[in-house]
Amino acid sequence: MNRSALVAAIRERKSFLCLGLDPEMSKIPAHLLESEDPVFEFNKAIIDATRDLCVAYKPNLAFFEALGVPGWQAFAKTIAYIGDQHLVIADAKRGDIGNTSRLYAQAFFQTYNCDALTIAPYMGGDSVQPFLEFPGKWVILLALTSNPGSVDFQFGTQEDGQPLYIKVMKKATTWGTPENLMFVTGATHPAHFKSIREVAPDHFLLVPGVGAQGGDLKAICEHGLNADIGLLVNSSRGIIFAGQGEAFAEKAREAAAVLQKEMAEILLAAL
Amino acid sequence: MNRSALVAAIRERKSFLCLGLDPEMSKIPAHLLESEDPVFEFNKAIIDATRDLCVAYKPNLAFFEALGVPGWQAFAKTIAYIGDQHLVIADAKRGDIGNTSRLYAQAFFQTYNCDALTIAPYMGGDSVQPFLEFPGKWVILLALTSNPGSVDFQFGTQEDGQPLYIKVMKKATTWGTPENLMFVTGATHPAHFKSIREVAPDHFLLVPGVGAQGGDLKAICEHGLNADIGLLVNSSRGIIFAGQGEAFAEKAREAAAVLQKEMAEILLAAL
Repeated sequence: MNRSALVAAIRERKSFLCLGLDPEMSKIPAHLLESEDPVFEFNKAIIDATRDLCVAYKPNLAFFEALGVPGWQAFAKTIAYIGDQHLVIADAKRGDIGNTSRLYAQAFFQTYNCDALTIAPYMGGDSVQPFLEFPGKWVILLALTSNPGSVDFQFGTQEDGQPLYIKVMKKATTWGTPENLMFVTGATHPAHFKSIREVAPDHFLLVPGVGAQGGDLKAICEHGLNADIGLLVNSSRGIIFAGQGEAFAEKAREAAAVLQKEMAEILLAAL
Repeated sequence: MNRSALVAAIRERKSFLCLGLDPEMSKIPAHLLESEDPVFEFNKAIIDATRDLCVAYKPNLAFFEALGVPGWQAFAKTIAYIGDQHLVIADAKRGDIGNTSRLYAQAFFQTYNCDALTIAPYMGGDSVQPFLEFPGKWVILLALTSNPGSVDFQFGTQEDGQPLYIKVMKKATTWGTPENLMFVTGATHPAHFKSIREVAPDHFLLVPGVGAQGGDLKAICEHGLNADIGLLVNSSRGIIFAGQGEAFAEKAREAAAVLQKEMAEILLAAL
C-alpha cells in the first residue's frame, strides 16, 4: 500500500488507527484454544471485527516467534488474511549489516509480503538501505520509542546539542523519502512532537503507546498532524484484550470504535 | 553453556573461534539442493567438519527467516544438532519494549534453547532486562558493530565527551554481569579495543568482521584478551563458503583450521 492509497484509506474510514496484533497465548480466550491454530483464529476474529475502523494492522513478531514454527505459520496466515486494503506492518525491529539486512528484507517483503517493517537504527545507514530498495515497501525506523528505556540513549545530547533521536531522524531523511520511510515516535512523549515535525514535516509517524502505555491521542495530534494526516496511531493490548471470553471480538470492536470516533472528530476539526 | 564451561572449552580446544552460520541458499552447493532440507544438510556438514576447531556457533537468523517456515524448521534442527559442547548464539539482534522482549527471550532461550542472543541497545534498559532474567543464558549487546554504518551513530560524541558505544557499554554493565552479558565489538575497529577494555575489562566480547569484512585477528587480541581470554572471534562467510562443490565442508575445515592455528599461537604467547 503506497502513500496515496494510505492517505485515501484514512480519509475514507475517518481513521488513522493502526491495530497492533500481539496475540499472547496466555490471554487468548479459552474457547479458541481447542482450535487447530488458536493464534490465527484469534487474529481472524479481531480483523473481521475491526476492518472498517482501522487503516493498518501491526503484527508483533515476538508473539509469533515465541511459539516456534506454528507461530510463523499463524503469522503467514494472518498477513494473507488481512489482504490489501490495510497497510500491513511487521513489527520486528530488525536491522543488521548490509548483506544480512538484505535477507531480512526478502523475508518480510517477499516471503511474507508485508508492506512495512520496523527497523532499529543503531547499526546505521548500510543496515537500513537494503530495506529501502524494495519498491512499494516501507521502512519504519525507530526514532523515539514509547518505553521507559527510551531515556537511556535516545535523549542523549549529541555534538550539535540535539538528542540522538533527532540525529537519527535527520540522517534517515537523507536515506529515504516520505514515500518509503516513516518513523516510530512514541505517544508517551507528546512534548517532543513539535521538534519531530520540524525535522520530518512530511513523513508519516507510527505512534505506539496510546492505551496500555498511557499516551494521549489529542496531545500527539496537536503537533503531529500534517497536510496528509501523517500519523498512524497504534493501539494493541487496549483493543485486542479489551474483553475476554466469547465476546472478545465484539469488545475489541467497541474499544477500536472509541479511538476511531475520537480520530474522526480530530480529522473533522483539522479540515 | 556458562562462563566457566566456555573458558574451559577455549583452553581445551585452543580456540576462541565462533563459527557464523549464514546459510545463504544461493551459495549452498548444488548437490545439497536435492535433499529435503538443504539448509540443515549444509549446516550439519559444516558443524561435523569444525566441532573440534571452535567453541561457538552463531546462526544468523536472517538467512533462516528469509526461507519462511522451512527456514525456522532448519534453524531448530541446527540448534539441536550443535548440542551442548558449544555456545549457541542466535544472531537475531532483537530488542523491544519490555513485554515484547520477554516473548523474544522465551522464543530463543526456551522454544529454541539457544545459549545467547544478540540484542540491539537503542530502546534502552527495559528492552534488555527481560533477556537477562533467564538463568544460564547470555545477552550479547551491540556496542561497536563491524559494518560501515557503525560510524553513523555509534561514534557520536555524548554529554561526557565519549562516543555512544562507550555510553552503551557503561550503562549495560550496570544491567548485567560478566556471567550473563557480552558485547559485540567489531574487528574492523581494532584501535578502539583499548577503550573497550577500560569500560569492560572482564566481559567477553563477540568480535565479528574478521575475514570477509577485513578485520585482523592479531590487532584485536593486542588489547582484547583478558585473563579468561574474553574474546569470541567470529568468521562466517570466510569459512562456510571457503569452497564450493562436493568438497565444501573440507574446505570450510581448512579455513577454520587456519584461524584456529593462529588462535592457538596467540593463546600460547599470552600464557
